[in-house]
Amino acid sequence: MTLTCKHGPHIRDLGEFGLINLISRNVRSSPKVSVGIGDDAAAFTFQEGCVALATSDMLVEGVHFDLTFCDPFRLGRKSLAVNLSDIAAMGGAPGCFLLSLAIPETLPVNFIELFTAGMLGLADEHGAVLVGGDTCASRGGLVISVTLYGEQKGERIVQRRGARPGDGIFVTGTLGDSALGLELLMNGHGEGSCITRHLDPTPRVCEGMALAEAGLPTAMIDISDGLLADLGHILECSRVGARLHLEMIPLSREFSAHVASLPERDYSLAISGGEDYELLFTAPPHKRDAIRSLFAKLGTPVTEIGEITENSGMSLLSPEGKPIASDRKGFDHFPLRQQLHTGTPSQRPRACHENLSKKG
Amino acid sequence: MTLTCKHGPHIRDLGEFGLINLISRNVRSSPKVSVGIGDDAAAFTFQEGCVALATSDMLVEGVHFDLTFCDPFRLGRKSLAVNLSDIAAMGGAPGCFLLSLAIPETLPVNFIELFTAGMLGLADEHGAVLVGGDTCASRGGLVISVTLYGEQKGERIVQRRGARPGDGIFVTGTLGDSALGLELLMNGHGEGSCITRHLDPTPRVCEGMALAEAGLPTAMIDISDGLLADLGHILECSRVGARLHLEMIPLSREFSAHVASLPERDYSLAISGGEDYELLFTAPPHKRDAIRSLFAKLGTPVTEIGEITENSGMSLLSPEGKPIASDRKGFDHFPLRQQLHTGTPSQRPRACHENLSKKG
Repeated sequence: MTLTCKHGPHIRDLGEFGLINLISRNVRSSPKVSVGIGDDAAAFTFQEGCVALATSDMLVEGVHFDLTFCDPFRLGRKSLAVNLSDIAAMGGAPGCFLLSLAIPETLPVNFIELFTAGMLGLADEHGAVLVGGDTCASRGGLVISVTLYGEQKGERIVQRRGARPGDGIFVTGTLGDSALGLELLMNGHGEGSCITRHLDPTPRVCEGMALAEAGLPTAMIDISDGLLADLGHILECSRVGARLHLEMIPLSREFSAHVASLPERDYSLAISGGEDYELLFTAPPHKRDAIRSLFAKLGTPVTEIGEITENSGMSLLSPEGKPIASDRKGFDHFPLRQQLHTGTPSQRPRACHENLSKKG
Repeated sequence: MTLTCKHGPHIRDLGEFGLINLISRNVRSSPKVSVGIGDDAAAFTFQEGCVALATSDMLVEGVHFDLTFCDPFRLGRKSLAVNLSDIAAMGGAPGCFLLSLAIPETLPVNFIELFTAGMLGLADEHGAVLVGGDTCASRGGLVISVTLYGEQKGERIVQRRGARPGDGIFVTGTLGDSALGLELLMNGHGEGSCITRHLDPTPRVCEGMALAEAGLPTAMIDISDGLLADLGHILECSRVGARLHLEMIPLSREFSAHVASLPERDYSLAISGGEDYELLFTAPPHKRDAIRSLFAKLGTPVTEIGEITENSGMSLLSPEGKPIASDRKGFDHFPLRQQLHTGTPSQRPRACHENLSKKG
């Protein structure tokens, strides 16, 4: 069989056990897993003294991804990456995961081969192991649900609620690339670093674990809804406010060039575009040097972009120190009293942001 | 707001955080849960010395349930029950769970209220706690994905692969009621004990745990695909065969009356109908008395229906001891080289059976 996705046999030609064999044939074994794929439930162990972490994301065709943009290999990677990013944001080490798929009968077998190869490849990079899940038919589009476990010592887990007035606000990597990548895709562009960041985001797993293990952050979240919305979650949970400096927000060369090309310098994709999957965390000022030194070792950029304030609310300051009006809202799946998804599916190919665990 | 489901505000009137609040407002706290709904991931502990169990089921509207048959309260219960049944089949105690929902924007808010009330009510009955999940929009029907954790001491976990020649084959409760209930529903009947068993199955949680803790079963599975198909999974995993006695298969009064009313006595719903959610297990003959005494204490019927044989294959014997031809196949979501779901959605409202963890 060639590695193209449009042709070849369909899922209905494979049979259900053929499908399960296809998904599970390249799954690695792990000493942690005593019962893997092939029983009513999986059985596995956590490291002694560790707390279990669990997160789940559902990705729905036409809502979170569009198969005209998204190749199956990178879709497989991204479906796991968004969950890895959540475990990273708690400071956890990823462990076992379950994959549930509702599959249209006409999906090519090759799609599932590539999807699984992408997902298991990323899993291997982070020591995550597929242990079970569910496969069933879909009468609509493809639905992907991944549940990932992680672990960390209880006292090391970093929540959203620990930010304190005076803490610095830090972010890894650069912001806005993914949202710009989506815009480029929708305008017919094919490849490029921003498009790659949108289709194949890098979860900051090592960074989250290293921060937690060094006891540096007071609060942490991954940026999926956009900087302002996700900082908003930290502020609500911690009952504090924040001041952000627009010129400190880290931008890639590609993003800066794009902004410079616009008639008005518009940073909105960097502050509310979403799907960056960078870590946003707070830490007291005396930890600044330790943070810089940690990130230098990891080879990952980290930038201080503002500070936590006692007064609630968020202010975004221009380079001249003037407050800038901004729309804090990130992506909402059910926008209040508005028509949902007025665009066509291809205008809304965004990964799932709104997690039950996102309630402030 | 009245407790009817057809009227009242829709999800799109509620907003996403309103939806999350609605789902989470009646969630109980638990000393096991250090981070519940409201962060990037949930954090919880397992009992020391226990292995973690995990299972996931996805239920898709039009494939596994039909909203014309299924009230939201019982759908909420059933979505968790099918997962509780999987944990029971491993001999585990249920613990935390995650709920992911892809919701059509026009779904009434009241639907989610009733669905959640049903699910959380059943969770309370079994000490299960909702700790997170995901909510997102669906462009098609409702999709429900539940991932449930359980725990049990490693040496107590009961897998599918331990059946040995000479073992008796036992089943809890009665078989066929759920499949008959579905037939009755499709023929326009409204209520009755078989319909209740279809819409609101009872997971055998106490029975599974008690069996495991007494070290009685050599292999165990829950009957979701039908007796013959699920026994087939035990036989494949254990590399043994079986002889079943048709007249020993436990039937309810309602099911027996139905069979007696047919021109030919047809037991097919009892042996391959599926969705019984009874436990099917094997145990050596010298454990028979201990099993009977355990089930007498629990007040649950248990019946020995056959024996494990060295020769592979399965034979089903008539009361006269003659082999009966039977179709072993249970429900397959992707039947090999056949058109999938040739019926209308309302002819296929079956809960999801085919779990990745079902591979033999």
